[in-house]
Parts: sequence; C-alpha cells; structure tokens
Amino acid sequence: MTTRVLTGITTSGTPHLGNYAGAIRPSILASRQLNVDAFFFMADYHALIKCDDPVRVARSRLEIAATWIAAGLDTDKVTFYRQSDIPEIPELCWMLNCVTGKGLMNRAHAYKAAVDQNTEKGIEPDDGVTMGLFSYPVLMAADILMFNAHKVPVGRDQVQHLEMTRDIAQRFNHLYGADFFTLPEVQLDDEVALLPGLDGRKMSKSYDNTIPLFEGGAKATKAAIMRIVTDSRQPGEPKDAEGSHLYTLYRAFATAEQSQAFKAALEGGMGWGDAKQALVDQIEAELGPMRDKYADLMAHPERIEEILQAGAHKARQVATPFTQRLREAVGLRFVAATASGDKKAAKTESAKPKFVSFRDEDGRFRFRLAASSSESVLVSVAFDDPREAGQLQKLLAAGQGQVRDAKVYIDTRYVADAQVEEDQVRAALAALAAE
Amino acid sequence: MTTRVLTGITTSGTPHLGNYAGAIRPSILASRQLNVDAFFFMADYHALIKCDDPVRVARSRLEIAATWIAAGLDTDKVTFYRQSDIPEIPELCWMLNCVTGKGLMNRAHAYKAAVDQNTEKGIEPDDGVTMGLFSYPVLMAADILMFNAHKVPVGRDQVQHLEMTRDIAQRFNHLYGADFFTLPEVQLDDEVALLPGLDGRKMSKSYDNTIPLFEGGAKATKAAIMRIVTDSRQPGEPKDAEGSHLYTLYRAFATAEQSQAFKAALEGGMGWGDAKQALVDQIEAELGPMRDKYADLMAHPERIEEILQAGAHKARQVATPFTQRLREAVGLRFVAATASGDKKAAKTESAKPKFVSFRDEDGRFRFRLAASSSESVLVSVAFDDPREAGQLQKLLAAGQGQVRDAKVYIDTRYVADAQVEEDQVRAALAALAAE
Repeated sequence: MTTRVLTGITTSGTPHLGNYAGAIRPSILASRQLNVDAFFFMADYHALIKCDDPVRVARSRLEIAATWIAAGLDTDKVTFYRQSDIPEIPELCWMLNCVTGKGLMNRAHAYKAAVDQNTEKGIEPDDGVTMGLFSYPVLMAADILMFNAHKVPVGRDQVQHLEMTRDIAQRFNHLYGADFFTLPEVQLDDEVALLPGLDGRKMSKSYDNTIPLFEGGAKATKAAIMRIVTDSRQPGEPKDAEGSHLYTLYRAFATAEQSQAFKAALEGGMGWGDAKQALVDQIEAELGPMRDKYADLMAHPERIEEILQAGAHKARQVATPFTQRLREAVGLRFVAATASGDKKAAKTESAKPKFVSFRDEDGRFRFRLAASSSESVLVSVAFDDPREAGQLQKLLAAGQGQVRDAKVYIDTRYVADAQVEEDQVRAALAALAAE
Repeated sequence: MTTRVLTGITTSGTPHLGNYAGAIRPSILASRQLNVDAFFFMADYHALIKCDDPVRVARSRLEIAATWIAAGLDTDKVTFYRQSDIPEIPELCWMLNCVTGKGLMNRAHAYKAAVDQNTEKGIEPDDGVTMGLFSYPVLMAADILMFNAHKVPVGRDQVQHLEMTRDIAQRFNHLYGADFFTLPEVQLDDEVALLPGLDGRKMSKSYDNTIPLFEGGAKATKAAIMRIVTDSRQPGEPKDAEGSHLYTLYRAFATAEQSQAFKAALEGGMGWGDAKQALVDQIEAELGPMRDKYADLMAHPERIEEILQAGAHKARQVATPFTQRLREAVGLRFVAATASGDKKAAKTESAKPKFVSFRDEDGRFRFRLAASSSESVLVSVAFDDPREAGQLQKLLAAGQGQVRDAKVYIDTRYVADAQVEEDQVRAALAALAAE
C-alpha cells in the first residue's frame, strides 16, 4: 500500500538556501519514493493569518511555486496545489469547527505563546489575536483530513497541532459513526540539516544572515557567500575545517569524497577566498540548471498557474466526492429517504434487498445493503480482509443484527448509514432474513 | 434603489403555528414589496452547531423549506437557498476570521451565556463549547456580507451579532482599502406578534404548548386547539374576551370586523367549545389551501430540491464573482502583474493606458485604469454620481494623484487595486499625464 504524505508550505517570504537544503530538497527526494503518494500545497489561507498585504501573499506564492518546481518537484507524480483553489477545505473546516471543543484550541501552543507575550507586556491577553490565529489548528486539521494523509512531516513545534488533528478526526468519526477520517501520524523532521548562515548561527531571515537561493541569480548567491564570516588565518596557514561553518555549508552540497578533499585542502592551507570560490562552484553545480528554470517560470507566471490548476484538478478529484460524502454524513444533503410519506421509501420496502460488495477509495472492502438498484439503506465500515466483510453479511442475512438508531450492530462491529430510517433498515433486514 | 433584505432560517425542529404567525407570514408579506430584494436561506451550517443528528438536520430542512413554499413564498421573486449549497460562504468565513479579533468573539452574548452557565455549575468555563458555537458570529457575518444585504431582520438577542458583522466588514474594508462590504442595518422584529400557546404563555417548543402548523394535518391542529386552556364559564355566561388568549389567537387570523364579531359573541355568552370551533374554521380558511401544497411537497422532496437548486444557482450568480473579487483583494489569486521580470508587465508599460468606466453589480459607477485590454492597474471605488467618477479621472489624467503603496489618492478619495506594483501604477499614470 502507498503512504500518503502531506506537506503544507507557508507562502510568506522568499525561499533561501537554508530552506532549500533543510526542507525543499529532502521533501522532493522523499516524494520520489515509489510507495509514496505525496501531496504538497501552498498554504495561502494560512498566509492570510500573518499577512494582510495581498501583493506579498501573491508574489511569495509565485516565488515559492517556482522554487519547488525548479528544484525538481515532479508535478506529474505528486499532487501540487494551492490551498485556496480547494473550496472544500474551508467547508470542511466549518464542519470540524462544530465537533472541536474550544477548550482544545485554548491549549494550542501558537495561541498560548501570543497570550503569554501579551500578559508579559501587561496588555489584554487576546490583544492582536485574530480568529484566524485562534482557529488555525482546525484549518490545519481540514488540510490533512481532507486527503486522509497517513503521514505529515512536521517540526517539533507542530507536533501538538497534529495531535489536535487526530483528536478532531476521532471525535468526528465517533459522532457520525464511521471511519471517515484516517488518523494521521507525525513524521518528525528532526534529522533535517539546519544550514548555518553567514555568521554561523542557524540560517534564518530573522537573523539577517541568509544566502539567497534563486532571487538575484548566481551573482547574489556568490556575493553572499563571499561575506561568510571566517577566522583571520592567511592563505598557507592550516585551517580548522571542522570548526568552520563554511565547511558545513560545503558538505551540504558535496559528496563524501568531495568533502574529504575540501577538508584536506583547508587543513593544508587553502586560503578562505579560494575556499569560498570552491563553495560557490559546488553550489552552482547543483543550482545552476535550476536557476534557468526558475527565471523562466518567473517570467511566465501563467505556466506556474497552469501547473497549479492541474494540481487543483487532481486534488479536487479526491476532495469533491469525499466532501459530498461528509455532507451527507452530517445531514447537509438531500437524501430522498429522509422524506416521510415519500413514494421512494415505500418502494424500498417492497423491493428485494441485496448486499453489494465494493472497494472504497482507500482500497478497503465495504458492502452496502441495497434496497433498490439506486438506494442503499446501510453502508458497512471498511475491512482490510474481504472475508471479514463477507462473514458480516452472512450474519446480517441470518437476522443476527441489532438496529439501534438506524445503525446495525453485530457483536461490537457495526454497519452504519444514519441517512435512513431505522424502520427501513429493519424492514430491509427482515426481508433479507425471510428469503 | 431596491433594498436587499436577508433572513436566515434555523433548520432545527418543525415549524408550529407561532412560527407561522410570528415570522413566516410577515416575512413573506414583506418580501412581496416592490422595492425589496429578499434573500432567504436555510442556515444548515449553523444547524450543525446544535445538532449532530444528520437525519434530524436533513428532515428539519425539508419540513422548513416545504413550509415556507407552501405558505406562499414566491421563490421566483426572492432568492431562496440552502446555506450549504454556497461553498463561497465558508470560504468567506475564513477570510473574515483573519480580520476578526478573538476579543470580539469573547464578548458575544451566546458564548458568554454558555460560559456563565458553566461557571454557575462550577465546571470549566468552556465546557461543551465548540469552535462552531464560538465562531458562529463570524459565519453569520459571512452569510450577510456575501450578499451585501442592506437590512437584516433580527430579534433583540441578535442585535449584538449584527453589530459584530458591521465591525468585521469595516475592518476588512479598511485593511484592503475599498468598500467591498455594505454595512448591514438591523431591522428590529419587535412588533412581531408573539402568539400565545395552549396555556397562555408564549407559544414555544420548550413550554410544550405549541399548536402544530402543517405536520399531522388539519386533524392535529384542531386537536391542539381543543386543548386550549380557558376559564370554566359555561355556555350562556358572558366571557372576558380581552383576557382570553383564545381571542388573541383568533385575532391573528381574522380581519378587524371578524375579530369584533367574535369578541361580541364571546361577551354575549358563546360557549368555549363553539369559540374553539370558530377558531379552527378561521385558521383552516387560511391554512387549508397551504396544507395540500405542503403535503404534496413533502411527498415529492425532489421538487423541493429542484427549487433549492434553482435558488442556489441564483445566489451563486452573486456569490461566485464577488468571492473572486475578494480572493483577488486579499492576494489569493493569480495576477500576472505580480510576477517580477514578467513580459506582460513590460508590455504594460509600453501600452497606452486608458480609463474604462463601468457600472458595478450594485449599479454604482466605477472606472478602471487599463494598461492593456485585459489588465487593469487600478480600480476606482464606487460612486453614486457618474460625474464624480469622471472628475476623478480627469484629475488623474492631469497627473494630480499621489501613489502610496499602489493606491492612488486624490485629496481624500482614492482608487485602489493592491494587486499591482506601485511602479506600474506610477508608469501608467505618467504615460497618461504625458499624452
């Protein structure tokens, strides 16, 4: 079975070399694995929480999309889309709101951090906190649950939010009586290499020590590398390679052999200027071909848009039917059988019921109890083993089921479709048992 | 100018006679006024907050739709739709979340009432409070602002939530620099006649004193009326008409003359049994023809569905383009001009800019500054007077405008489209002034 891995990319700012080595490159590598079904989306609904400048939101999204595609993301293999192209996501977010305790959100790290900061300053605890920030974990849950992702790669700061997603999913599944949502698992990104910046601290925009990735071209990257802080040893003097972050940067773009040779050269007295030029060459060997692609994409944003539209189409092939199923589950859709005195319902009772087995979108085994060709009065939960599903059908056909609130229980297992009347289910089961 | 009036109908429970006389009948009457553009929607996303029983949500929605249609709502004149058929509403709800202070929601009556109850019981303040309940005023704001309603008829308990809608709309308009949203006005429903129930208290499901409307047919309505509590005066004894809630009920379904005659008869000694039969006859004269229509609709739920689908189509003709405009305003959509180094942008600078005047969906006057046939670098705010719009164009063409953050200010007025580069706007304006 393939594992569905879902990654959200925040669309604020312009990606730098640290983002590339720490997140983009490893994610793209992971997405190439055969048994991985990777979903990548640009989280622009999330960007609205932090940024009310529409130009920045739009431009950042463009730069980020171009970066990922230029860096080798295979947009035919993976599903690469813009969150705001999937209107089913905010709709699911509302459905999840209705099963999520406010108390759960009160405990979210991001929110608590904002409150703590305000309390320290002696101002109102909720000062500057929007409903967007406060309900952000519910939107994140919708992002993940919409595609029933198995694994979500996150940093330590997001582990709690993923646990909340599991809580919310469980509550929904329980309330509406079926395994609608897969409980996603955390994939901790601890091993990700954090590149040092110009000054040796972690490369980060907030330290103003970043090395540009594509923006500004090879010239900008080289200019930054030339500003990397080193010690004052002159050419000819042996250098402490292990203690130099220039070496750490080099290793992130070199093979083991190349790194070994670079280290030996430094220890043998290579000057910092030559070492920086070697780093520039090494980085350019990897980034060069990508640069052209990036520049080309940025010059033709309509090509990026085309790729994103194709991705949205692909994503909605999952999201649209699944949302329809969820709407039915919570009662938002028209179901003929809910009308009392309905002729169709009357027909149902006279038609011969039968079991229809099928495999669901996850490839698991289910069956429905069809009272006529077009209507089903029951849909089973999913089984990994088709024999188990068959056994349950036999028990039901033998009249060995209990009907409680239009759900049918056999031992501790059940088949459920709350859209129909208990009486209808009883009638269909009785007809089946009588055959 | 027509006034857009928007009414949300909660889809829980089955309408009774009190709902009919107090809300349904007057709303339908009001919707028939020539200068009123009435929107009615079944608030089923809201129903999810209170009800996790899908069968009840679906059936209640069916009964309520059938009731309103049977009671004479002209679904061709008004826009009658199901909230959950408009996916733009939860999407707008998320956009509004991002401009709504959590502090505002902390002060919402419905939420505070829940907290007070919990505090009294000595349990956690947020016990049982879902994110749905907590963010409910934001969804309500999305319902109203999506259609730029001028007036919203509400009871006293909803006045605060409508003020929140105004706050949220103002904040969004301010942040994104244009009058996207109309600030809705409250239309207080104070004069609505509250019908007494069987025991003389306000007719309400919670008092278990309701008279059925359509469910159960004429028989059920009559049986309930026969149980109305009266005093023990015998036939022949004069009755206190003014002090009797039977008389109040009668008046709600009779002309002034009929009421006068009924009163005189009671004071003249008519027996309570005869009075109840007179009330039954009076109510049936009004409800009788509606009953058949109701029964027919409930027997053909697919007809209700057809009407709702037509209503959704009508509502989305407003919601879809408006949402597209909002997406662009906050930065969620592709705009070619945001790409740096974009060929189109270069073309823009060389093409001759020109003003294009147009009327917007509200019939007000706007203009855009088109740098090429397909792209506009500026869109004006809306003017009631086309001459005012023309004057502003002349000033801009004369180079008398200040560009701040890609918004153009003339005196205190401005034209705004934050999707484009300030430089582009400057270039277009300069080209225009140079002509």
